[in-house]
Amino acid sequence: MVVAVHRLQESAKLPSSSAYLGEEPNMSIILVADIGGTNGRFGLVNACTHGKGYNAEKQISLASGDYPTLADMIRDYVKQADVPMPKFACLAIAGPIQDGHVKVTNLNWEFSISKLRDELNMQALDVINDYSALAYAAPHLQANDKKTLYSKDANPYAPIGVMGPGTGFGAALLAPVSNGWKIIPTEGGHCSFAPTTDTEIAILQEMRKQHDHVSIEHLLSGQGLVSIYRSIAVIEGAEAEDLSPADVSARGMKHQDPLCEQALQSFCNILGSVAGDKALSWGAMGGIYLGGGIVPKIADYLPQTDFIKRYLNKGIMRGYVEDIPVHMVTNDKAALIGSAAWLVDTTQALQS
Amino acid sequence: MVVAVHRLQESAKLPSSSAYLGEEPNMSIILVADIGGTNGRFGLVNACTHGKGYNAEKQISLASGDYPTLADMIRDYVKQADVPMPKFACLAIAGPIQDGHVKVTNLNWEFSISKLRDELNMQALDVINDYSALAYAAPHLQANDKKTLYSKDANPYAPIGVMGPGTGFGAALLAPVSNGWKIIPTEGGHCSFAPTTDTEIAILQEMRKQHDHVSIEHLLSGQGLVSIYRSIAVIEGAEAEDLSPADVSARGMKHQDPLCEQALQSFCNILGSVAGDKALSWGAMGGIYLGGGIVPKIADYLPQTDFIKRYLNKGIMRGYVEDIPVHMVTNDKAALIGSAAWLVDTTQALQS
Repeated sequence: MVVAVHRLQESAKLPSSSAYLGEEPNMSIILVADIGGTNGRFGLVNACTHGKGYNAEKQISLASGDYPTLADMIRDYVKQADVPMPKFACLAIAGPIQDGHVKVTNLNWEFSISKLRDELNMQALDVINDYSALAYAAPHLQANDKKTLYSKDANPYAPIGVMGPGTGFGAALLAPVSNGWKIIPTEGGHCSFAPTTDTEIAILQEMRKQHDHVSIEHLLSGQGLVSIYRSIAVIEGAEAEDLSPADVSARGMKHQDPLCEQALQSFCNILGSVAGDKALSWGAMGGIYLGGGIVPKIADYLPQTDFIKRYLNKGIMRGYVEDIPVHMVTNDKAALIGSAAWLVDTTQALQS
Repeated sequence: MVVAVHRLQESAKLPSSSAYLGEEPNMSIILVADIGGTNGRFGLVNACTHGKGYNAEKQISLASGDYPTLADMIRDYVKQADVPMPKFACLAIAGPIQDGHVKVTNLNWEFSISKLRDELNMQALDVINDYSALAYAAPHLQANDKKTLYSKDANPYAPIGVMGPGTGFGAALLAPVSNGWKIIPTEGGHCSFAPTTDTEIAILQEMRKQHDHVSIEHLLSGQGLVSIYRSIAVIEGAEAEDLSPADVSARGMKHQDPLCEQALQSFCNILGSVAGDKALSWGAMGGIYLGGGIVPKIADYLPQTDFIKRYLNKGIMRGYVEDIPVHMVTNDKAALIGSAAWLVDTTQALQS
C-alpha cells in the first residue's frame, strides 16, 4: 500500500468562515467521503466543529457501481442531501494516488484531482488514502467513536500509532507537527512475524511451509485468521473445515468449536503482541488505535483474551508500554472524520 | 531510552551571521559536543556549511572524569581550541533529559540547561539525546561519513530510519517537516524478535529459557552477539568459551572459530532482517542508516553475509524494500554533525 496525499487549491483569498445564506454554500462546510470499490459514504462536516469531533451530518451511502464517474456520484449526493455544492472537499479513496492522478480499486474510475475540482467548481479538493484518513481521525475521535481496551493518559505531544487487521493489516503513524499531525504511511503489516509462545512458534513453522517470508499480515487479517485456524488444526492433528474468516470468529466467540476458539484467541493474543511492538517501534506515547474491519466485530471478545497481557509483555520496556493507552476505533465512519480534520489542518481558509 | 529534546533560547534578536573579528565570537559558530560517561568529544561547526556536511573543526576529545562539571569541561575545550566562547551550542548527551534538567550516565553530573547557558553567557544552548543527534546527522552525512551497503536513490521527502547495535539497540525515525526533520525517538530495539530460519527459531527457543520476552536487543547488541554464540553452542552440543563481544566478532571475522563465525553471520543476517522490518514499519523510503558502535567494526564483513538478502526478503513487499538504500554510518563523530544540523534547523538566528 503506497499512500500519497495530494492537494490542489486555488490561491484566491477566501472570506472568513461566516455562513452564506440561500443558494450560496456555507464557506465552512466540507464535503467528505470514503470511497471504496463497492460503496461511497458521504457526509458534510462543519470546519467550526474543530475540537468537537468533526462528525459528519447528512450521511448517505451510495453504490459506487451506479455512477459512471465520481463527479456524478458527488453531484447525486449533493442533490440527495439537498445542499448547494460545497466549496471544499476531502475524499478518502481506496486506491493508489500518484502525481495528482487517482485510481479507485475495483472500479474503472480514474481521474485527475485538479480536473475534478474544476468540474465541481470547488475552492479546494484533497484526495487522501483511506487508511491515512482513518489514521488522521485518531486524535479527533470522541468517546462514542472508540472503545478503550487499555486506559492511560496519553502524551498529547507524542506520536500516535494506528494499526489493525482487515483484508490486510494496515499500519500508519501520526507525528505531531506545528499545524496538526503528519501522516507517516507505513507497511508495518509486512514485517516478519515474531512468535512468543510454543504454539506461535509451531504456527510459524507450519506457515513457513507455504511462505518464505511469514509476515504479520499472514496471521493478522481475515485470511490470516483462517491460516491460524488451519495451522492449529495441523498441529493438533485435527481436520480443518473449509471456513471463512467470519465463520472462524463467529464460532470462536460462541465457544462452539475448540479449534476456532483457539484460533481466535491466538489471533487476539498476537494482535496484543504486535500492538506492543508497534508502540515501541513508533515511540507512540500518544496511544495506539486499532482500526480496520475486524476489530469492531470482536470488540467484546478482545478484552476476554490475553491481548493486554501480551501488549504489556515487553521485558524491561514493560513500564514504557504501560504508559500507552490502546483504543479500538468503533465508528466505521472514522475516515470521514479524518478527511475533515486533514482538510482543516492544511487549509488556511478553513481555520477560524 | 527516553529521549527528549530541550531548547532554551534568549529572545533577543541577533545580527545576521556575519563574522566578528578579534575577541568577539563569530556569530555563525556552534560549539558541538558528544558527551558520554567516559569521554566528551568537542568541535566547532560553522552554520554556513549547511549543505556541506557540517563537519566539526578543532575536534578535541577530553576525559569527562577530569572535570568537576560540564561547564568546566566546555571552558577547557574553548581554551585548548583557542577561540572565544561561542554564542551557540548543542550538546549530545548520553543520559536522560527531563524538564530542562540533564543527568549524564555514569557521571555525577547533573545540570539545568538554562543555568548552563547563562553560566557560559550563550545566546542559545540545546541539549539533545546522543542517539537523536546521530539520527539527525543522517540526511547531512557526506560520502566519506558513510558506506553504502545497498545502493538506491532515496526519496528525499520520505522518512529516514536510523538503527543499530551497540551496548543496546538504538532506533529512531526522522520525519521530514517544513523546517528540516522531526526526530521521533523510539524503543524499536525492544520489539519481540522475529526468527525467520530454523537456526533462528532454535536460538529463540534457547533464549526463551532466560527471558520471558526475547527482544531484538537481546540478539543485536554487544551482549546479544555473545548470547547468539552461546545459544548456537548449546544447539550444536559444543562447549562455549567465556568470550567478550569483541572476541566473538574478531574470531568470526578471521574465520578462526566456526562457532564464532556462525554467531557473527547470524548476527549480521538478523540485522538485515530487522533493517527490512524497520524500513517497513517506518515507511522509511528515505533510507536506512545503520549507526551504533558495532557496525563500523564489522563494516567490511557485513557485505560478505546474507545481510542484503535478508533485508530484501519481505515477500510481496520485496519491491518496496528494494527501493530503500541502506548505509552504514562510519564517521564516529556523526553526533557532532547531527547536533549542529539540529541547532541550525531550529534556530532562526543561525539561518542565512
